[in-house]
Amino acid sequence: MALALSLSRQAIGLSDPNPRVGCVITDRAGRLLGAGHTQQAGGPHAEVMALRDARARGHDEAALAGAQVYVTLEPCAHHGRTPPCCEALAAAKVGRVHLALLDPNPLVAGKGRAHLEAAGIACELGLGAAEAREINIGFLSRMVRGRPHVRMKIAASLDGRTALPDGRSQWITGPGAREDGQWWRQRAGAILTGLGTVRDDDPRLDLRLPGIESPPLQPLRVIADSRLQTPATARILQSPGKVLLIHAGATSTTPWPEGVETLALPVGHPGDPRTGHPGDQPACHPGGQAPEPKVDLPALLAELGRRGINELHVEAGATLNGALLKAGLVDELLIYLAPALLGEGRGMAALGLLPELTAAPRFEWLETALVDGDLRLRLRRASLGY
Amino acid sequence: MALALSLSRQAIGLSDPNPRVGCVITDRAGRLLGAGHTQQAGGPHAEVMALRDARARGHDEAALAGAQVYVTLEPCAHHGRTPPCCEALAAAKVGRVHLALLDPNPLVAGKGRAHLEAAGIACELGLGAAEAREINIGFLSRMVRGRPHVRMKIAASLDGRTALPDGRSQWITGPGAREDGQWWRQRAGAILTGLGTVRDDDPRLDLRLPGIESPPLQPLRVIADSRLQTPATARILQSPGKVLLIHAGATSTTPWPEGVETLALPVGHPGDPRTGHPGDQPACHPGGQAPEPKVDLPALLAELGRRGINELHVEAGATLNGALLKAGLVDELLIYLAPALLGEGRGMAALGLLPELTAAPRFEWLETALVDGDLRLRLRRASLGY
Repeated sequence: MALALSLSRQAIGLSDPNPRVGCVITDRAGRLLGAGHTQQAGGPHAEVMALRDARARGHDEAALAGAQVYVTLEPCAHHGRTPPCCEALAAAKVGRVHLALLDPNPLVAGKGRAHLEAAGIACELGLGAAEAREINIGFLSRMVRGRPHVRMKIAASLDGRTALPDGRSQWITGPGAREDGQWWRQRAGAILTGLGTVRDDDPRLDLRLPGIESPPLQPLRVIADSRLQTPATARILQSPGKVLLIHAGATSTTPWPEGVETLALPVGHPGDPRTGHPGDQPACHPGGQAPEPKVDLPALLAELGRRGINELHVEAGATLNGALLKAGLVDELLIYLAPALLGEGRGMAALGLLPELTAAPRFEWLETALVDGDLRLRLRRASLGY
Repeated sequence: MALALSLSRQAIGLSDPNPRVGCVITDRAGRLLGAGHTQQAGGPHAEVMALRDARARGHDEAALAGAQVYVTLEPCAHHGRTPPCCEALAAAKVGRVHLALLDPNPLVAGKGRAHLEAAGIACELGLGAAEAREINIGFLSRMVRGRPHVRMKIAASLDGRTALPDGRSQWITGPGAREDGQWWRQRAGAILTGLGTVRDDDPRLDLRLPGIESPPLQPLRVIADSRLQTPATARILQSPGKVLLIHAGATSTTPWPEGVETLALPVGHPGDPRTGHPGDQPACHPGGQAPEPKVDLPALLAELGRRGINELHVEAGATLNGALLKAGLVDELLIYLAPALLGEGRGMAALGLLPELTAAPRFEWLETALVDGDLRLRLRRASLGY
């Protein structure tokens, strides 16, 4: 199973929106017969790749009959773009299937295991489950909640400053932390930022991985831009790959470059029963003026879920960070702390004035690691439920 | 040596201003003959305690002759409040002395080893040196620089806020972090704070160790209070133990309680050639008014060094923290980060507006540890030199 998990990591940045799955087939003595991982969407899944690999290595049906199969997620039971994997395993008459995790996809959800057991193949569940869950945390989130696992990345000084007061932030953290951040971007189906960051930093927010010329998948870049004020000359719009501009019902005459799509998702938009984040409602607005329309952040996440985004990587400024945190939409924090203090400067998240200390958005520690002179902190929301 | 180091830790909170030293005596086969650590100032040192312990266990002079001695710091060679330890070891005719560290005290500084070698006792240096240095980092600082090792303790949220904007800070971190902070206070000969913290939090800043009714030493409490505005009713003045109020030449009619001493150390005070921190000089002051007199922080540290303070524990607000950091006087940071974000609030250190990112006070990572739900970060100034 350890090898199957390693293989499943090879599918990161490749298999989205499909899960990252590895599969290893051995004989009864534990000798490797074949192995593989999920390919690009529409391509073969891990089980099929492993069976093909075994046959390519000269193992015939007799060798496969009774074999042990280690797979990091329950084999699919439905006809999607490829035939169901549990049928391929049943046809090969393997002896036993070890599953790290059941697939919460309602099209699978235990049916894969049931299909195998009905074919007389014993199934064992749970080996390597924790690691398999980490690798597919975004897929699990989308299957269970219909929206991506949201990971917010912040680079800051020890005292929580992300930039000097004038916005200068290049560079607070070192090159190792920035490269590490690229690998986290690679895990994500989409990268979310706000208009402020586009204006201040003019980032490309694309994938630039050391040693990889053109990654098989470029994450979708998403900009929360209520009034559609992103300049057409912004580097994020000029660099290759798709960009989704989410606005709050604004109109714009900007000639958007190719690959740019705009979508209105205002708070309180028709068909969305959610109220959005507190303070946005007209009733709460002093002076009786209509409030500035804002992007409905839960609706934004639901839209990304519909588009098959498993992990959403947020690289934004204090305003969007604060809105996401206040709305309880952040599942994970990925913070790089430089070992320096800046004193005055921009904060991590604009949360407004908290009524008391207990109102602070709270997380649980997941990991700390030293990355080339900076400290990487990872934290999770308590009890994710997936 | 591992046992000697453990014993030396028993002298923390006991032996100040003397170093924390442990000593173990074994026979040639490594069997324990005696062990001990430094007692309160004026009491016996570790070597004498270990020799006494060996004799109390019934080991006579014949048993001690040729014994192996493990001692975490070079035995003293001078007559202080006790006779020199190297004479006691030489008199016992031990066979070999393993020294973790040489003592940088100019009264010792290699003379202890020379005395032993002249008496025909072989000396070996360096076993356990790194740990012995950590335990005595403050003593080494005072011997080498004439001032304490300065450790700044900060409790903050993930985004670097030490309090809500109105000053509420109880409690950002949990009870485990607060108890851990007490053990770091115990290491310190003195605790430094500023008038702002006294006014805002009214802390006692004394030692309240779980399971220890009355600690043998209470650290000196030091308040940097340029204009002598500490209220006589402040809890820090009312609780037992000594308090040193450092001011900048102010006068006060406050009836200070017993145990409170005041001392003027203004920037540019007679006899101190140092200029203090930038911005305090009249030439830099706009409008031609005389600047507010301030406490000379380097002079404050030199004064504490003269008083035998090895480690200084700083628990202050952003103003004093910022002044110490800007003056380059902070050797170590001890930061407890709660896994929550506060958004708006008080910062760790008021550093003024930095001209560029590279002007930020910078440290090196020493340790991270999870303490009861909070993350403890320890950082050091690069190349301490002791």
